[in-house]
Amino acid sequence: MSLNIYLESTPLHEALSKWLQRLDSGLVLRPLSGEIIKVIDSLGRITAQAVTADISSPFYHSSAMDGYAVRFADTFGATERNPKRLKTGEETVYVDTGDPIPDRFNAVIMIEDVNVIRAKSGGQSSEATVTEYIEIISPATPWQHVRVIGEDIIATELILPENQKIRPVDIGAMIAGGHVDVSVRRKPKVVIIPTGTEIVEPGSDLKKGDIIEYNSRILGSLVCEWGGEPIRFRIIPDNLEELKKAILEAYDMGDLIVINAGASAGSEDFTAKAIKDLGEIVLHGVSIKPGKPVILGWVKEKPVLGIPGYPVSAYITFNLFAKPLLYKWQGIEIEEPEILRAKMSRQAASVLGQEEFLRVKVGKVGDNFIATPVTRGAGVLMSLVRADGFVRIPAMSEGLGAGAEVDIELMRSKSDIERTIVCIGSHDNALDLLANILKKRFPGFSLSSAHVGSMGGLMALKRGEAHMAGAHLLHEETGEYNVPFIQRLLSGRKIILMNLVYREQGLIVPKGNPKNINGFEDLTRKDVLFVNRQSGAGTRLLTDKCLKDLGINPGDVKGYEREEYTHMGVASAVLTGIADTGLAILASARALALDFIPLAKERYDLAIPHEFIDTEMLQCLIKIIQEDSEFKNMVTTLGGYDVSDMGKVIYES
Amino acid sequence: MSLNIYLESTPLHEALSKWLQRLDSGLVLRPLSGEIIKVIDSLGRITAQAVTADISSPFYHSSAMDGYAVRFADTFGATERNPKRLKTGEETVYVDTGDPIPDRFNAVIMIEDVNVIRAKSGGQSSEATVTEYIEIISPATPWQHVRVIGEDIIATELILPENQKIRPVDIGAMIAGGHVDVSVRRKPKVVIIPTGTEIVEPGSDLKKGDIIEYNSRILGSLVCEWGGEPIRFRIIPDNLEELKKAILEAYDMGDLIVINAGASAGSEDFTAKAIKDLGEIVLHGVSIKPGKPVILGWVKEKPVLGIPGYPVSAYITFNLFAKPLLYKWQGIEIEEPEILRAKMSRQAASVLGQEEFLRVKVGKVGDNFIATPVTRGAGVLMSLVRADGFVRIPAMSEGLGAGAEVDIELMRSKSDIERTIVCIGSHDNALDLLANILKKRFPGFSLSSAHVGSMGGLMALKRGEAHMAGAHLLHEETGEYNVPFIQRLLSGRKIILMNLVYREQGLIVPKGNPKNINGFEDLTRKDVLFVNRQSGAGTRLLTDKCLKDLGINPGDVKGYEREEYTHMGVASAVLTGIADTGLAILASARALALDFIPLAKERYDLAIPHEFIDTEMLQCLIKIIQEDSEFKNMVTTLGGYDVSDMGKVIYES
Repeated sequence: MSLNIYLESTPLHEALSKWLQRLDSGLVLRPLSGEIIKVIDSLGRITAQAVTADISSPFYHSSAMDGYAVRFADTFGATERNPKRLKTGEETVYVDTGDPIPDRFNAVIMIEDVNVIRAKSGGQSSEATVTEYIEIISPATPWQHVRVIGEDIIATELILPENQKIRPVDIGAMIAGGHVDVSVRRKPKVVIIPTGTEIVEPGSDLKKGDIIEYNSRILGSLVCEWGGEPIRFRIIPDNLEELKKAILEAYDMGDLIVINAGASAGSEDFTAKAIKDLGEIVLHGVSIKPGKPVILGWVKEKPVLGIPGYPVSAYITFNLFAKPLLYKWQGIEIEEPEILRAKMSRQAASVLGQEEFLRVKVGKVGDNFIATPVTRGAGVLMSLVRADGFVRIPAMSEGLGAGAEVDIELMRSKSDIERTIVCIGSHDNALDLLANILKKRFPGFSLSSAHVGSMGGLMALKRGEAHMAGAHLLHEETGEYNVPFIQRLLSGRKIILMNLVYREQGLIVPKGNPKNINGFEDLTRKDVLFVNRQSGAGTRLLTDKCLKDLGINPGDVKGYEREEYTHMGVASAVLTGIADTGLAILASARALALDFIPLAKERYDLAIPHEFIDTEMLQCLIKIIQEDSEFKNMVTTLGGYDVSDMGKVIYES
Repeated sequence: MSLNIYLESTPLHEALSKWLQRLDSGLVLRPLSGEIIKVIDSLGRITAQAVTADISSPFYHSSAMDGYAVRFADTFGATERNPKRLKTGEETVYVDTGDPIPDRFNAVIMIEDVNVIRAKSGGQSSEATVTEYIEIISPATPWQHVRVIGEDIIATELILPENQKIRPVDIGAMIAGGHVDVSVRRKPKVVIIPTGTEIVEPGSDLKKGDIIEYNSRILGSLVCEWGGEPIRFRIIPDNLEELKKAILEAYDMGDLIVINAGASAGSEDFTAKAIKDLGEIVLHGVSIKPGKPVILGWVKEKPVLGIPGYPVSAYITFNLFAKPLLYKWQGIEIEEPEILRAKMSRQAASVLGQEEFLRVKVGKVGDNFIATPVTRGAGVLMSLVRADGFVRIPAMSEGLGAGAEVDIELMRSKSDIERTIVCIGSHDNALDLLANILKKRFPGFSLSSAHVGSMGGLMALKRGEAHMAGAHLLHEETGEYNVPFIQRLLSGRKIILMNLVYREQGLIVPKGNPKNINGFEDLTRKDVLFVNRQSGAGTRLLTDKCLKDLGINPGDVKGYEREEYTHMGVASAVLTGIADTGLAILASARALALDFIPLAKERYDLAIPHEFIDTEMLQCLIKIIQEDSEFKNMVTTLGGYDVSDMGKVIYES
């Protein structure tokens, strides 16, 4: 079934240089021609040639003050004892600030420094004309209080060099220099062809097997951000001939043709074949992860890119192999990403021989920047949405150890990261609401949650990796929540424990409870598949306690070894038939309209080290928890929550 | 003539807080309502409410591999010695990567791991049907090689919080989450009214007294950059009633009305009066420089800003008093400007009681960032074009000393600054061409020139403030250029002296030489007004040598004390009648079509400290000087240049 296309594994730097060399030898790696547009529409465009001033600014001598224009030679010798008089209209004229200085004058005396004198002439008849003089008591220096021609810009002067991005002030300067039009680089046009028989447009009626097309929208938006113009082609089904026709049609529309996807070597991957039939495959397969099956191609006189279908692969390969072209074509350099040095919070293994682009979240806790890997699946777009940046793990590395220092290519600004509260620990749906309302009330701050379970959260506090941790750890001996664990794990640290909610835990079952599950005792049934939480999660402790209380051996529970990391993950597994039941909070059942068998009410608290409590961002968050009635109402609406102690300090060490 | 409007001098922080308080009490300091737009058009917009997933992504279980979908329970017990057979179409089906898993299956076995067996049934007739089986030799685990529902996004999950700027990946995630539309903040509309009877549109036939209107284009472009929508009103003449009518008309068009200018207290400054007649003046006059006469006003239920007319004042006040509103209205925080710590290369005095916004150029020379003030006139727009950032000099300071450490609010990125060659010294028109061609050939690098004369340039090298200096210093005793000065001023430093050009110096006179000037001997004539260069300039040394050789006392030269800093400044002074003649290079006379009386041919060299010569940016520049024939031709075309030694190393210490 395979087309037997051989997928190479070329190192990234080799692939890049091969790609750029091919383009260079094809004569396309040079700035595009200029196009003439109105200066007033040129914000953000790139100059295609130098802009020099056609006229000086100002282009006439003008007064810099309200006052009288004079010939400075006429004012020589004026003193307090020997004032000089100049006749208005002849030897002097009044000028407002900005008025042109008549040709015969070459200085201005401020209005405050003259004495205006009116003298009647022509006898005492009513037709007598009034002659006006100004009296001055000190001489003027040449060109005093005059804005001379070219004070701002001298004709022929360079205003902007070629290849310069046009800013607001540049627009003003070009207009001042006499320009109405400006030659800017044509925007590079990128034609993006979405392919796949299963692909449908957003908003379509969905049926199983459909894939909503969004990669072309991500790629197109990137093209916009890079200064280009995306052209989104119609969706092409998996058919070699149709794809070839599409490429030829797209050829005349743009400078770069991008095909997404079919870049792999599977049975329905026609991209490589289509490019090969029409032109040449420069390279197929780069040893990066994700993004390996990228195709660098050349058809007639234009580059053609085959981009893999998984969204993270598409994003990374498009950045690597398309972005440099768009910048070269505009005559500008790629702005280097902000690099941040941080410590890995945990290890990340990596495959030898592949350069890996690891997505990480970054938090600043105390003085340390801490990087934590997010999901690594190439199909998980949310890993990009949530990521703060990339760590590149070199091909020759087997991974990064916990505590390793890494350089992160940032996707968010460092200052955004510095204003982000890092919450690591147990998952609760109320945290999503809290993140949202924090952003709403205080747009400068963000709340970032990582779900590693209650124990994991306390350990993260211990290692200085989080500002707060959500926990609902039941201490079996004392029946107390969280406090005994804090005392044991965080002894010597000053911790404030604040209640967020009480919440109901129970077994989630499909709507109508088709398998008639009523409690943990049903988990040993042959026809019941359970889904568990990861070890260290408070809910896992609760599960194990319930099983122990009932004397059930975990080995007798089918699915006990399948772990989810969040309540929503458990609910989703039940909804989609992956499991028949799992333990989670009521809110997650409600969210997905599932049924719920209540088993326990528990306390969910936030543990906050004392040293962070007085930071502005934590104070804003606490203000919301303690005072915001909208937040309280929203949490209550989720279902299964008791907010009566929300914001109450439970314990302080 | 004055309307007797009292101009206050409120400290900036007071003015700002009064302004924001007034807006808050007027209920306008809150995010604007949302509007529904297509997700695919939402790049860069701000979410007006949280976006949660309507559907899961993927929304059905799909195969993560090419292979066979099975029920994992059917595979129990398969081993190499006891393989299991599953009947195709019943107990298993073939699936491509991405295909949905039929409901009855819950695992996928990779195609590589199965053995496909075809068995004929129904005897040996031609109608015999072929039954297909797969043979497996190990059991499948539940859900192996399956992309389960919600692997990327679980329905109801938070995709984006409120007040989030939408990025390319966010667009993808919203579509994946089932959205076609999204609610984003309405763009704030800012109506900009240009005023002034003397104001004309760019491209008009210009007559003396006209002012080309460009401030509204700068302000409008800033509005675009801040995410708003500028609406440029027609030009309104200086007339109180017309201005009031315009404000009322503009009132219905936008969220903020901006009047430029007439914000001062002069005879034709109607803005304050108009706002007062229609509403209320919150404040008129802030103790900042430039930008003092700003007007913060309120009409009915909307803010009205009176912005001063000088472009630098307009830019600064608009940033201070309009930008915060646009950000609040969109529900986002202003991104703090990048701050760079640098040393002042020279002192900058400042008026006590006014907070000054000093524009500076910044260069990185060796390990030091060096800040140099650019022209301070509020009317000099090029000071903004050329500036790399602002230094704020507090109201209570009388200025900054040379060497003072300052914090610069950057207008260019730090990495751009790090890739800028700082050339301080004598001015030559060829440097403009060099700056332009460097940017053209190597868009990543820039050349920034400051013109302080040849001596000033060598002193800047000495103080470590420049990468190179242009000089044409004639040593009277030896007749040698530059070398003796380098040996004296830069002893102990390793300097490479490279020739740029030989050039002709002479007296510049108006076209046709109306005053019949033939040489320096004419400068003592009563009817001849000279324009000089600043002391320390090579051209000034040449002037003084010529006068001395002729036995002329500088006191007898009218205009000797009027100094310009560049050849073009001298040429411009002659062109515009400020002076009758001045000493400058032929190229500057040619640029402005003036006549020229040649007096001397001189050598113009670049002095480059050895430690900078091997940096990539200097190597690029030197490559152009030594090898670029286009550059050579362009310089030759300027006139008066001999490029035969261009790039030749004259001397190395």
